Amino acid sequence: MAGDATGIAEAVRAGTLSASAVTETVLDRIARLNPLLNAFTDVTADRARADAAALDTRLAAGETVGPLAGIPVAVKNLLDVRGLPTRAGSKINRERPPATSDAVLLQRLSRAGAILVGGLNMGEYAYDFTGENAHDGACRNPHDPARMTGGSSSGCGAATAAGLAPLSLGSDTNGSIRVPSSLCGIFGLKPTYGRLTRHGSFPFCDSLDHLGPFARSVRDLALVYDLLQGPAEGDHACAGRAVEPTLAGLSAGADGLRVAVAGGYFARGGLPEAHDAVTRAAAALGVDRVVDLPSAALGRAAAYIITNAESSAFHLERLRTRADDFDPDTRDRFLAGALLPASWYVQAQRVRRWHHEQVLALFQEVDVLLAPATPCSAPLVGQKTMVLDGVELPVRPHMGLFTQPISCIGLPVCAVPMALPGAMPIGVQVIAAPWREDHCLRVAAELERRGVARAPLADPTLS
Amino acid sequence: MAGDATGIAEAVRAGTLSASAVTETVLDRIARLNPLLNAFTDVTADRARADAAALDTRLAAGETVGPLAGIPVAVKNLLDVRGLPTRAGSKINRERPPATSDAVLLQRLSRAGAILVGGLNMGEYAYDFTGENAHDGACRNPHDPARMTGGSSSGCGAATAAGLAPLSLGSDTNGSIRVPSSLCGIFGLKPTYGRLTRHGSFPFCDSLDHLGPFARSVRDLALVYDLLQGPAEGDHACAGRAVEPTLAGLSAGADGLRVAVAGGYFARGGLPEAHDAVTRAAAALGVDRVVDLPSAALGRAAAYIITNAESSAFHLERLRTRADDFDPDTRDRFLAGALLPASWYVQAQRVRRWHHEQVLALFQEVDVLLAPATPCSAPLVGQKTMVLDGVELPVRPHMGLFTQPISCIGLPVCAVPMALPGAMPIGVQVIAAPWREDHCLRVAAELERRGVARAPLADPTLS
Repeated sequence: MAGDATGIAEAVRAGTLSASAVTETVLDRIARLNPLLNAFTDVTADRARADAAALDTRLAAGETVGPLAGIPVAVKNLLDVRGLPTRAGSKINRERPPATSDAVLLQRLSRAGAILVGGLNMGEYAYDFTGENAHDGACRNPHDPARMTGGSSSGCGAATAAGLAPLSLGSDTNGSIRVPSSLCGIFGLKPTYGRLTRHGSFPFCDSLDHLGPFARSVRDLALVYDLLQGPAEGDHACAGRAVEPTLAGLSAGADGLRVAVAGGYFARGGLPEAHDAVTRAAAALGVDRVVDLPSAALGRAAAYIITNAESSAFHLERLRTRADDFDPDTRDRFLAGALLPASWYVQAQRVRRWHHEQVLALFQEVDVLLAPATPCSAPLVGQKTMVLDGVELPVRPHMGLFTQPISCIGLPVCAVPMALPGAMPIGVQVIAAPWREDHCLRVAAELERRGVARAPLADPTLS
Repeated sequence: MAGDATGIAEAVRAGTLSASAVTETVLDRIARLNPLLNAFTDVTADRARADAAALDTRLAAGETVGPLAGIPVAVKNLLDVRGLPTRAGSKINRERPPATSDAVLLQRLSRAGAILVGGLNMGEYAYDFTGENAHDGACRNPHDPARMTGGSSSGCGAATAAGLAPLSLGSDTNGSIRVPSSLCGIFGLKPTYGRLTRHGSFPFCDSLDHLGPFARSVRDLALVYDLLQGPAEGDHACAGRAVEPTLAGLSAGADGLRVAVAGGYFARGGLPEAHDAVTRAAAALGVDRVVDLPSAALGRAAAYIITNAESSAFHLERLRTRADDFDPDTRDRFLAGALLPASWYVQAQRVRRWHHEQVLALFQEVDVLLAPATPCSAPLVGQKTMVLDGVELPVRPHMGLFTQPISCIGLPVCAVPMALPGAMPIGVQVIAAPWREDHCLRVAAELERRGVARAPLADPTLS
């Protein structure tokens, strides 16, 4: 499974590889590597084998199958999977009845021929940037199992980087797609807020939650993103949203796009590897323009308070009655949120709107911004603090230093893996104006074509 | 000045009445009645005389003048008036420097030929439904000066009902246009949230504040509303909003509109006069359909919390440092709001969105809803409680019983005066789907044409 999903699906559709063979290869790989990586919390082997066999039958009968024919996918365990309780990384949710249908996005992938192989580990209730979980254990980085995957979509990062699922779906509230993409060395897309329906997923923070895909090539990412799009009845954030395909336009690369490096806030505060990755991306694109986002620090502060307040309001009853059943690392954050005064939240929403207006004005003059995805490559599993800019800071919240000011205003971002050979992965954020995921993906494709962005298959047993 | 503004402007433009004569008549009337009514906090006589003289000069020179030529207008004192501090009904704001320009809506009226005659009394910081004010004294109802005008746009209600300003501008957050319109027996329009720019006005509660006009005829209301419309640079709620004129369409009346009476929540809880006004309006229109809005009570509760939290966040610094300078009746409400937990506000916004969705679905099946505007006609000045449905309730918050569930979801509403001869005024709300002010105004015009809606000129010295 060294190829990308597009390549595998082509082989399946051409009849040179059966969906069942692909499924068995991936299930074997999961059996071999998952005990080390702890990426999966549920492996849906029976369902995968049945779906693959059904697909092979349809192929043998000459039926037309979708563009993801035979592709194994896995989903962060906050997306509903028929027959499983949607645990959202928690102990408490395991008492829920099994979901009676799949999340809408998973249904769309299945309709395109994808084969679900399981549910993926995540930080409890998605309030996490580490990939650690008191109930399910830490998810481990396939490039170095002593290190974190990042979170909260930890299992997505590990499973897709290690080829346990060429495609996966996760969520990003303040960086939970981009942080594990960066630390695990894969591509991840956080679309514009409201682009992809969240129907059938367990929420974290309504005004900030996004769902999105992970992949190991840009064409895979664009393919799956195009299939995920579309309106969903009754989804307040995404109602009536049209499909705007991106895959066919990837070949245009960065042609005609005004690309700039995000300076100021984004040019400092990370370790050298983080800023170096941006420098290399800019150099590959011939970009020397730098623009400032002076509202970023306040925007991040606002996102912090909004997340804390909205998520604690959502969990209030559970905090009152089941506090002992929370992961200690998330419980303390939720409890703090439950004590915030309303005036902080109101003020934070005001600052967020102001920040949004500032950044939208900037996008009159640029199409794409480059920024670090994480302040450093993967810390060690269990590491509690790190030193940034001479200040010792807790790891858990501060891995979102560069992602949080972007998602709180809903901008689309592609996380692009910029690993140097022999070094741990690290990513850059390719950020565009609202609804311009196509711009993110075109620049990501250009970086991949120029050979600076790569998502090599990781196998921790070989290193 | 017994005629409406349209009639006066026609006479001015025809040369049968000078703008200066109109101005002097109104200034005389203010001098005579305002000591009793306390509607004006500032009378801009010098400015009015200068503007009227300039208009008369232009008319004499044969220049074209606007459709409000010579019409005296007055504005609630939370709209900026060049040269005056924008007091917003407070003591604290009187220390502010004088405004350097007029509010944008006032500029638009002036450009159309209107003559500003003054700033109007209001409840402190607009947190009021009574028209009482500890700093400026109570505003009194021209139909019975022993009674309230309602608030918070108390001066608008009194001045327009008494002919001290045929047109006035006020604001409505939870009912502050509709309540004084109902109690003073005039027409008032609360447009869709985001329709009219709030530039140059002092805020109360950002996500609920609307500005809008008062008048004594529907054609006046439509005329002034049409002139007030239009986008305003940098106004986040109203940016890019197109002008959708309504005046020419008034003659269509209720033809083709699906009108229904709001039942359930809106059919009980008021005194008989409130529900009787709705019954008479429905009878005049031949409407017997009743529809329920089951989310109204929860919607009102949400509006209550959102108002309390947002306004207290806005006033937090003043509450910390100047609590003694607040009106005691508003201070206690603001202080309570400053103590609300964020989770209440978050939950209230969630309920508000759900309520909005419920009501939007209802508007697939109806175009216009009729509901009471206030639970009763004007209470006595100083009256603290009233008995509704057998429960003694404080007057101040509960005059918004029927208005609050409508404005928190931004629907346009025309308050229509339905007074019976010899009785104190009382209004009905004519409510439409978002952006359909034309529907509200057409039904109001139909009620006026059928003679059931009337806004007679009030003179308290004649009764």
